[in-house]
Amino acid sequence: MTELVVVAPEVRSWIDLPSHSDFPIQNLPYGVFARGEGPPRIGVAIGESIVDLYALAQAGFFEGVCDRALLTAPSLEGFLAAGRATWSAVRRLLVELLRIGGDARVRENAAAFIMPQQSATMCLPTRIGDYVDFYSSLEHATNMGKMLRPAGEALLPNWRWIPIGYHGRSSTIVVDGTPIVRPNGQRKAADADAPAFGPTRLLDIELEMGFFTGPPNEMGEPIALSQAREHIFGLVLVNDWSARDIQAWEYQPLGPFLGKSFATTISPWIVTLDALEPYRVAGPRQEPPPLDYLRQHEAWNYDVSLAIDIESAEMRERGIAPYTIVRSNFKQMYWSMAQQLAHVTSNGTNTRPGDLYASGTISGEERDAAGSFMELTWRGAHPLVLPTGETRAFLEDGDDITLRGFCERPGSPRIGFGYARGRIEPAHAVPAATQR
Amino acid sequence: MTELVVVAPEVRSWIDLPSHSDFPIQNLPYGVFARGEGPPRIGVAIGESIVDLYALAQAGFFEGVCDRALLTAPSLEGFLAAGRATWSAVRRLLVELLRIGGDARVRENAAAFIMPQQSATMCLPTRIGDYVDFYSSLEHATNMGKMLRPAGEALLPNWRWIPIGYHGRSSTIVVDGTPIVRPNGQRKAADADAPAFGPTRLLDIELEMGFFTGPPNEMGEPIALSQAREHIFGLVLVNDWSARDIQAWEYQPLGPFLGKSFATTISPWIVTLDALEPYRVAGPRQEPPPLDYLRQHEAWNYDVSLAIDIESAEMRERGIAPYTIVRSNFKQMYWSMAQQLAHVTSNGTNTRPGDLYASGTISGEERDAAGSFMELTWRGAHPLVLPTGETRAFLEDGDDITLRGFCERPGSPRIGFGYARGRIEPAHAVPAATQR
Repeated sequence: MTELVVVAPEVRSWIDLPSHSDFPIQNLPYGVFARGEGPPRIGVAIGESIVDLYALAQAGFFEGVCDRALLTAPSLEGFLAAGRATWSAVRRLLVELLRIGGDARVRENAAAFIMPQQSATMCLPTRIGDYVDFYSSLEHATNMGKMLRPAGEALLPNWRWIPIGYHGRSSTIVVDGTPIVRPNGQRKAADADAPAFGPTRLLDIELEMGFFTGPPNEMGEPIALSQAREHIFGLVLVNDWSARDIQAWEYQPLGPFLGKSFATTISPWIVTLDALEPYRVAGPRQEPPPLDYLRQHEAWNYDVSLAIDIESAEMRERGIAPYTIVRSNFKQMYWSMAQQLAHVTSNGTNTRPGDLYASGTISGEERDAAGSFMELTWRGAHPLVLPTGETRAFLEDGDDITLRGFCERPGSPRIGFGYARGRIEPAHAVPAATQR
Repeated sequence: MTELVVVAPEVRSWIDLPSHSDFPIQNLPYGVFARGEGPPRIGVAIGESIVDLYALAQAGFFEGVCDRALLTAPSLEGFLAAGRATWSAVRRLLVELLRIGGDARVRENAAAFIMPQQSATMCLPTRIGDYVDFYSSLEHATNMGKMLRPAGEALLPNWRWIPIGYHGRSSTIVVDGTPIVRPNGQRKAADADAPAFGPTRLLDIELEMGFFTGPPNEMGEPIALSQAREHIFGLVLVNDWSARDIQAWEYQPLGPFLGKSFATTISPWIVTLDALEPYRVAGPRQEPPPLDYLRQHEAWNYDVSLAIDIESAEMRERGIAPYTIVRSNFKQMYWSMAQQLAHVTSNGTNTRPGDLYASGTISGEERDAAGSFMELTWRGAHPLVLPTGETRAFLEDGDDITLRGFCERPGSPRIGFGYARGRIEPAHAVPAATQR
């Protein structure tokens, strides 16, 4: 098995690194960016800069290390398909080119290869084939069960055996900063005879992380859990926007559909397993023990601090800083990424490079560690109070939501994910029946 | 609105048309084929032949009619994105080139442009982005409700208001003839304390049809029902293979996942709305009347006869012909394709060219019009008896399943869909836990 490439804490880059930057040389996450009208290019974030991998590849820097076409493509699937040996070789070369005391060729011609993040527009990192959303936080599943099935057991009998999940919409996955239009849809009041169609009244977020897959498996050939590290490239933040009233009315018996499909926001930089390796930790004890194909003998959780900030239109107008409503951590997830991937492929399903697998809402035991308004306000019963005195049971038009994620520990460089942001725009007018 | 191009019944092609062929000049369905090691090409079926659109395009036949690149691509998304005006222009030209008494240039050089279907391997027609599976047959939803919720109402309260659906797996959609490996998975006996992992014991089919989308809509901009014809290119047969025991254990609360994701088979030729126009009929009365955005004032159902044949390994060995176990029709579907598309996009979800939307299992009122073994055998209680005397509660290894579909009426040419076939191969051995 190819080793992960962990960059020692003392290594420094000659590129400026502001304090609390998410992107030291120990991180080097991958993304796709565009400048002006130019076509999308693959890049790596460092400090407040982007290393232009297209330009480096065209200049021949990767000869003998990585097929040039994989890094001059407008999207990352090809590079993700190449697998861990290639990922490691490119990562080692980038460290050598970017560290103080390393290969000086890039530094000497920095204008050709390094650009400010501010001058770029971020794009989706891959053309996502299949998008799966799991439900792997014990606390979230328990909270939802208590609210949706108050008469029964909070946790369904299958939950501790199966990493429960479902397929989501891939066409509406958007990158950080994309405005989110409040969706219209069918919702039915409990005491109404019939549903009505109009803007959702219960617009929510879900705080999640997601992983991108690398080399494909053949249809019919599961990925053993022990091989998961060869197939998982890295992670992003995921906001699985949800319309709770639409979801509640539609989801029986086939699961969430239009209550979720209108938008999913991801952070633009894929943070690799290599960068996260110093923050890998054991997950919670699993009881009952999982079936053989889901048993893991290695730590597969990650200590990633997570936060959600809100900024209302009124806060913006009054110059009040965004307000943090949630502090949580990814490390408490019950089912790990390796278990999720082994499960998805256990029936022979093939994955493709650039697929996205989201964790499901990450909720902790504390009320302010819940990853959704549904849980934070207990279905609206206990609205949040913002610094302006405004209250929020669910999202209002004009609200800006920011997900943040980062790994921190004394003596270690901070490894961050950047942001997954979105502002709520008003619903579009419901067209009258336009047919004759 | 651009008109559909209906080819008059009396028009004949100079290409041989065996009796009962699915592919007269009135059909002209689109597919993607390969010869030997060559790259995939776009083609149109006629009789037992394929018209090679790549070759025609390279020879300049479509100049002024359709951008050459759309027809020399290895997949149909580009052509589907071009929209109905282009579809109509290409169809008119093809009819002119293929009809007796028309433009003789292809006929005079037929060897360059026409090839036997037998010498080609069919491929998927598009790179399918999102795949949605609906649940739009009243009879199927009622049957499933009776079996799965015997104590409650067979039909859930939302069913007559919403074209219920969910997202399926796009990576495992395969074309006619691809072998289907019996999936492994978790299933739990009702009286067992814990689930077990192994081959499904309740392998089933679902008889469906599906439509491919054309021009995309922008995210946030619904497709009004009145515009559906501009966005629906054509239809195929769909077999949504299902593992009922895996499905039953996993599906609460987020819907079907690994019980469905292992394989979906489609017929290779997309039959256009133009070809089907003579068989367009009104659907069943909808009561209560749908909400405004789902109201249709035109007939949107299609009179397509459907059949399922089975051939067991023993039948093959003994030379016994495939046995028809189901005869049904697509025309009885409660929710139409136009309603499905209007619903999917009603929350602003964007579609992409080449997406696939399947109808859900098509079941009729008669027992032998049910589109699944689950219904045909009432969950295995009443096994089918094959001509060999073998019985079938669900599928056995070696079984060949063929879906067929065709439109027929005295005085009109038959418009057929070809086949969606698959043979069940034994499950792969369950690997022991391979992690140390």
